[in-house]
Amino acid sequence: MNNKMKVAVMNGIGEMGFEERVIPKVADDEVLVKTEYVGICGSDLHYYETGRIGDYIVEPPFVLGHEAAGTVVEIGKNVKHLRVGDRVTLEPGKTCGNCEFCRSGKYNLCPDVIFFATPPVDGTFQEYVSHEANLCFKLPDNVDTMEGALIEPLAVGFHAAMQGEAHAGQSAVVLGAGCIGLVTMLALKSMGLTEVYVVDIMENRLQKALELGATKVINASKIDAIKSIMELTNGLGCDLVFETAGTEVTSQQSVHMAKKGANIVLVGYGKTGMMNMPMSLALDKEITFKTVFRYRHIYPMAIQAVANGSINLKRIITNIFNLDDVQKAMDFSVNNKSEIVKAVIEI
Amino acid sequence: MNNKMKVAVMNGIGEMGFEERVIPKVADDEVLVKTEYVGICGSDLHYYETGRIGDYIVEPPFVLGHEAAGTVVEIGKNVKHLRVGDRVTLEPGKTCGNCEFCRSGKYNLCPDVIFFATPPVDGTFQEYVSHEANLCFKLPDNVDTMEGALIEPLAVGFHAAMQGEAHAGQSAVVLGAGCIGLVTMLALKSMGLTEVYVVDIMENRLQKALELGATKVINASKIDAIKSIMELTNGLGCDLVFETAGTEVTSQQSVHMAKKGANIVLVGYGKTGMMNMPMSLALDKEITFKTVFRYRHIYPMAIQAVANGSINLKRIITNIFNLDDVQKAMDFSVNNKSEIVKAVIEI
Amino acid sequence: MNNKMKVAVMNGIGEMGFEERVIPKVADDEVLVKTEYVGICGSDLHYYETGRIGDYIVEPPFVLGHEAAGTVVEIGKNVKHLRVGDRVTLEPGKTCGNCEFCRSGKYNLCPDVIFFATPPVDGTFQEYVSHEANLCFKLPDNVDTMEGALIEPLAVGFHAAMQGEAHAGQSAVVLGAGCIGLVTMLALKSMGLTEVYVVDIMENRLQKALELGATKVINASKIDAIKSIMELTNGLGCDLVFETAGTEVTSQQSVHMAKKGANIVLVGYGKTGMMNMPMSLALDKEITFKTVFRYRHIYPMAIQAVANGSINLKRIITNIFNLDDVQKAMDFSVNNKSEIVKAVIEI
Amino acid sequence: MNNKMKVAVMNGIGEMGFEERVIPKVADDEVLVKTEYVGICGSDLHYYETGRIGDYIVEPPFVLGHEAAGTVVEIGKNVKHLRVGDRVTLEPGKTCGNCEFCRSGKYNLCPDVIFFATPPVDGTFQEYVSHEANLCFKLPDNVDTMEGALIEPLAVGFHAAMQGEAHAGQSAVVLGAGCIGLVTMLALKSMGLTEVYVVDIMENRLQKALELGATKVINASKIDAIKSIMELTNGLGCDLVFETAGTEVTSQQSVHMAKKGANIVLVGYGKTGMMNMPMSLALDKEITFKTVFRYRHIYPMAIQAVANGSINLKRIITNIFNLDDVQKAMDFSVNNKSEIVKAVIEI
Repeated sequence: MNNKMKVAVMNGIGEMGFEERVIPKVADDEVLVKTEYVGICGSDLHYYETGRIGDYIVEPPFVLGHEAAGTVVEIGKNVKHLRVGDRVTLEPGKTCGNCEFCRSGKYNLCPDVIFFATPPVDGTFQEYVSHEANLCFKLPDNVDTMEGALIEPLAVGFHAAMQGEAHAGQSAVVLGAGCIGLVTMLALKSMGLTEVYVVDIMENRLQKALELGATKVINASKIDAIKSIMELTNGLGCDLVFETAGTEVTSQQSVHMAKKGANIVLVGYGKTGMMNMPMSLALDKEITFKTVFRYRHIYPMAIQAVANGSINLKRIITNIFNLDDVQKAMDFSVNNKSEIVKAVIEI
Repeated sequence: MNNKMKVAVMNGIGEMGFEERVIPKVADDEVLVKTEYVGICGSDLHYYETGRIGDYIVEPPFVLGHEAAGTVVEIGKNVKHLRVGDRVTLEPGKTCGNCEFCRSGKYNLCPDVIFFATPPVDGTFQEYVSHEANLCFKLPDNVDTMEGALIEPLAVGFHAAMQGEAHAGQSAVVLGAGCIGLVTMLALKSMGLTEVYVVDIMENRLQKALELGATKVINASKIDAIKSIMELTNGLGCDLVFETAGTEVTSQQSVHMAKKGANIVLVGYGKTGMMNMPMSLALDKEITFKTVFRYRHIYPMAIQAVANGSINLKRIITNIFNLDDVQKAMDFSVNNKSEIVKAVIEI
Repeated sequence: MNNKMKVAVMNGIGEMGFEERVIPKVADDEVLVKTEYVGICGSDLHYYETGRIGDYIVEPPFVLGHEAAGTVVEIGKNVKHLRVGDRVTLEPGKTCGNCEFCRSGKYNLCPDVIFFATPPVDGTFQEYVSHEANLCFKLPDNVDTMEGALIEPLAVGFHAAMQGEAHAGQSAVVLGAGCIGLVTMLALKSMGLTEVYVVDIMENRLQKALELGATKVINASKIDAIKSIMELTNGLGCDLVFETAGTEVTSQQSVHMAKKGANIVLVGYGKTGMMNMPMSLALDKEITFKTVFRYRHIYPMAIQAVANGSINLKRIITNIFNLDDVQKAMDFSVNNKSEIVKAVIEI
Repeated sequence: MNNKMKVAVMNGIGEMGFEERVIPKVADDEVLVKTEYVGICGSDLHYYETGRIGDYIVEPPFVLGHEAAGTVVEIGKNVKHLRVGDRVTLEPGKTCGNCEFCRSGKYNLCPDVIFFATPPVDGTFQEYVSHEANLCFKLPDNVDTMEGALIEPLAVGFHAAMQGEAHAGQSAVVLGAGCIGLVTMLALKSMGLTEVYVVDIMENRLQKALELGATKVINASKIDAIKSIMELTNGLGCDLVFETAGTEVTSQQSVHMAKKGANIVLVGYGKTGMMNMPMSLALDKEITFKTVFRYRHIYPMAIQAVANGSINLKRIITNIFNLDDVQKAMDFSVNNKSEIVKAVIEI
């Protein structure tokens, strides 16, 4: 290969462009991956629209994208478990391995993580990316790289389910039927839960949830969602509640929909950072709130669930764009948030 | 109905007979169930062959059978959640509700439990049985009473899986492909585990395991089962090992097949009560051994798994007998242990 | 004894009085206890001041008090583990034993609980009380009934510590140095935690906390409590945070003071039922929020900790009143909330 | 300092000697420690007497000793948290940081661990040792290096307690009152357990256990230890059993002494590697067996417990030898196993 590659960059708010850059060198513990598909995440859109998330501020030119899969084209000299030609999905965060959090197995909390597309670290909207080999997971023959790109959001769903200590026999409700709500539902179903209700206010999302296997969907713009959940659970509420919408209304509903002693898993970020919560009710019910920050130790189980057919990940994808159309992809995604469940870039 | 019923009794070792008894009265918190199917369990056969299990000694005439399902024909005056005509499966153990174990939720350890077909408590090989309504679980429309009778052994499998803290993404091996081994495998599969290996030495059982969904079966009479498991797990061993055969060989293998840090779940009882175990190896691997005594809080999840189709319980049944043929059923079961996976009595 | 007893009753908001009532009969599973000490709880004061807590509304005459200890003077015919003359502390809630929560060991969530001094159930400001024998815990020789009356609030502290999964080696901060804050601190210390910081805004409470063994106290009215905790923990925050003050300020601080991955235990009820919480920060830190509703399975461990001297419960008591002075006791407690840590009534 | 140091070496079975070696260089992430005290562990004695433990075979000259503490005399250029002059205790195992076990926080199971005095890796019976700075834990002012050397065995005791999920309110029995039995008892006491019984057959060890705080000791050579434990626990058995003696007798007793549903923690290694266990009884009681391999994440809590005075570690030491007397120290230790609780070498 020639030593140059095309990179899609964010040149400013709402403004994408391209650069030609040198293909990265492979360090001893890394592999070079020819990127094939990259998903567009809500965080990518947020950076694109506003230039920041919290204290993370984009300095253009900046490369978005962290949901990536592709094919290994070169391997570092210490790499043993991968070969050129292997198709892989990339776990985006490199961690220090040495801090209290890494040592205790909670590497997702490592303060020194280097994470794709989190300023100032560039992301994967580019033709090649070099990455720590241990973070590149080989895809089985029956999982393609388009699915591979979606392992990252699916990992969030599985981590949410694991944080909630979900298991067969429990009832669950997922608030929000966006991409993260749907992958949470898929993860729960694949773990043997058979009562998984999904609540949203947009009918197209709910139809997608039904199509993907939700036990029942509830349109909260039309009926009283709390009352509906209570009726479905003999007045007890659900064993598990997953809040993925990131709104105060749904965060408050989560407490009302929960059974006494239930686990509520908070996944969605709100706009202001604050949530006014019915905490006295939570105490009366002795609720546990678990929260989700990315994931840890999840990629193998997510890949396995797709490989064995218990999760059909492709049906989440609603839009596919070429890298050349990245400006259009971003603009369309921003302008049609409620229509799009998941868009991916083909590179 | 007339107030008499037919009861199959064990009159001595290897000797079944019938009695006519008065149909039981229903206490305020009980329901009367017209029994339809009762499974024959290994413990029934053990009492039948030897007259005892440990300190529990049969005093004839004694009624065997504790895996029962049927239809409610009368309800006590305090019973709210069941109606005449409901089809139910019976959890066999009535517990005190008051001891340390009951109060802490581990009611299966209640020292004062009254359990069907555990001397001197009679079992369910009879046309009617009255039972605590809270221990009678209504079957959904798509679960029949033949399946209902098998909820009891399935509950053992689910409890084993729960004791092992099984979850999606783990690899598991089940040692022994008898009824309990198979239901354990079914429970694991329904909980999202996709690598569930089954080991036995009888080919017909292994074929049944494959038919029911085992990822791979290993005939330990033909190949080295430990080596085989190591090859299937990149030399690491399985995350979970379930010992259901109750032999010293398989108990020892369980440690060799386990990954470091793994959970081994011991389900099978041995003949002598003792097992010579490779404990230094277990310490080197920092193994956790969990054990299984019946089950607790499991019936709802087991029924649900059958109702939603994630477990096909009927395919476990290999033989059906009429109550009138109970002697033949018992003798055939004793003499063909390796052929029979599960026999049930139709009443 | 004569068959009449003196009962202190709440005749209206801010208005105590006395009645003569018949000494209760003892049911078969009960004991009759001659009450000796009863603590005054914040909930008693709340009913006294406002006539209600949430949906629980006082209908006068109503008997307050649920923190009681005394001497057994009569036993029901089924009672085996207690004798006349035994000194006991009373766990105040009788539960059904039959619901999902009772059966799974979480009896504190039983919807049918009958709890002293929770309308319409009368409390223990009376000379005699009959109570389920299983809820009467015998006090060892070296624990007197004044300490016995305080086992109830101590149980809340232990339950909070257990909910937080507290263990040796962790750092903890307790927000609020009222009675519940102090017993939480005492429970943590007795469980081997050696870094237990206490935050309040009243100096007398902080001095009491120091006297009782707090590692360090922080007066949040004088210094920046968050900054102070960060300095004490190398900038990481505490492994455990206990919010016992029930204010929005402290609830918000709890998230800021928590280490990544920490457990925050919410114990204090707020005035409005709502709390505006920094949930995005909680997600970034992947915080778990546990909540506390009363306690379960805690009395034996609380009694043991007092008996072996690892907790000096008496030093919590700041005021002792006679039953005859109950009006004064209540008024004084209401008017001197910040001075009083714990008042008890001697009966 | 001059660049040579004295090293005590094992030249053969039962044969110690000395060598002069070059003081090790400090790598960037290491510190050089002037060793002050090193404990003599049972494994050191085992290598000394037999030349091997399992597959680990001594190739002389070999350096024994892995329980070490001393003073930092030089630091690598990347080391931030330690300074020259700091007194430290050394966690002996360097792990890869990269394997499944390291990444999930169970670094004690790392297959590539490099552990002091485990052939072919030399130990710490030498004047200087260079070690990974992250494994050198600074001792507080009130903990000296003699105590520091004993943090290693204490860590085993704490890990055993943590594996057993020990908490206040539980009853525990420790089988074996050697060094590991005693540190386990100390750990349990410091975690708030107040019923900790110790069983042994040697009176001097039991007296040491009593002196260190055991609630009660039982001489199993004189009375029936199982019966005695049952009497102490109202016929129920203990919530926790710790087997530290490594004999078949005590391993079997552990099951008999355990309450239903209890955790038994196996710490002691037997001579043959095999243990004949009453597994049917274990199943009847639904026992969980946890095992202990070294420790993980324990040094900070062990140091803290010594620093705050909740554990008096020095009283475990029964014998102190100079490095020059290492031959005598080893021989004396081998020949007086039952007299010695813990011997240390002063360097």
